[in-house]
Amino acid sequence: MPHIPLPDHLPGITGLLEYRLDTAMPIRELTQILLRGESTLTQGERELIASLVSSRNCTRFCTAAHTKAADILLGEDQTARAVLADPETAPVSEKMKALLQIAAQTQAPGSAVTEEAVERARKAGATDREIHDTVLIAALFCLYNKYVDGLATVAPADPAYYDILGDRIVHRGYVRPPGGYPAPAKTNG
Amino acid sequence: MPHIPLPDHLPGITGLLEYRLDTAMPIRELTQILLRGESTLTQGERELIASLVSSRNCTRFCTAAHTKAADILLGEDQTARAVLADPETAPVSEKMKALLQIAAQTQAPGSAVTEEAVERARKAGATDREIHDTVLIAALFCLYNKYVDGLATVAPADPAYYDILGDRIVHRGYVRPPGGYPAPAKTNG
Repeated sequence: MPHIPLPDHLPGITGLLEYRLDTAMPIRELTQILLRGESTLTQGERELIASLVSSRNCTRFCTAAHTKAADILLGEDQTARAVLADPETAPVSEKMKALLQIAAQTQAPGSAVTEEAVERARKAGATDREIHDTVLIAALFCLYNKYVDGLATVAPADPAYYDILGDRIVHRGYVRPPGGYPAPAKTNG
Repeated sequence: MPHIPLPDHLPGITGLLEYRLDTAMPIRELTQILLRGESTLTQGERELIASLVSSRNCTRFCTAAHTKAADILLGEDQTARAVLADPETAPVSEKMKALLQIAAQTQAPGSAVTEEAVERARKAGATDREIHDTVLIAALFCLYNKYVDGLATVAPADPAYYDILGDRIVHRGYVRPPGGYPAPAKTNG
């Protein structure tokens, strides 16, 4: 049960973003710019970073949501799974492996992004902007993960929930749906 | 040396916030709302939360900056120091001790905010909103700390730097100075 009263039909981050709309707006905006804005990283690649960081932080809600978004954007469900298991053996480019290592180092408590990891990324063709954005996406998902877990929000167990959420994230982005979220359809009366 | 080229005269977060202005804007806005907006927590109390989380993440730049801001807001330099050493014995209210515990639990990797900590805060008079804001401030400073450390930005050793920055944070807030930051005064020619 969440530490503060949140609507049952809005699990994970969704209830928190409705709880305080004024703080939600810049959080949504930052996410929209970083994950959906212009970038030399594909949207799928950026969702892989979000998914890996969330997984390393053990935040089930965010991991499931962004893995699903990556699956939809990549058109298959093997790559994201492989990245969560081990970025080094996942079927992604050498540049993405290096950026995923930087994201993992950003997330890791007490760790630091090493010169070696940055050098590796550069050798694989990563730009300053890609390195910057990888660190900032990783930092942003640490915010999300700690927000979601810190207030003990609920992560639905049903994969169907994340099918719908992943579809929304991919096709509508991170902006607030006009008028907020509809109340759930009544199923028992 | 930072992992990406940043101006020498803009250490820590300041260079990053000028590096990408479009992502900086919502980060600044979120901080301004959370730390300077209307709240039943004083600005000094909120700076103590920022300072404690930054200290636990071992991010020197943010710890020094927000400790200084707390000092200015509280009108003395003992409380922030005591909070960093041990919130339980610091000269703050029982409610603040409980909220600082929640902030520390939010920051701690692999930890969780416990029912007991939330119950303690409520018994000491904390509202849902105060509990929410404490977790979100802690999560936001994890973003800042990871952003600042992930890109290996520089933390000036000279305390005078933080006197000026702390003063700016307190008196101008987290919005961008009009026109950005002036280039440093030339001291050697």
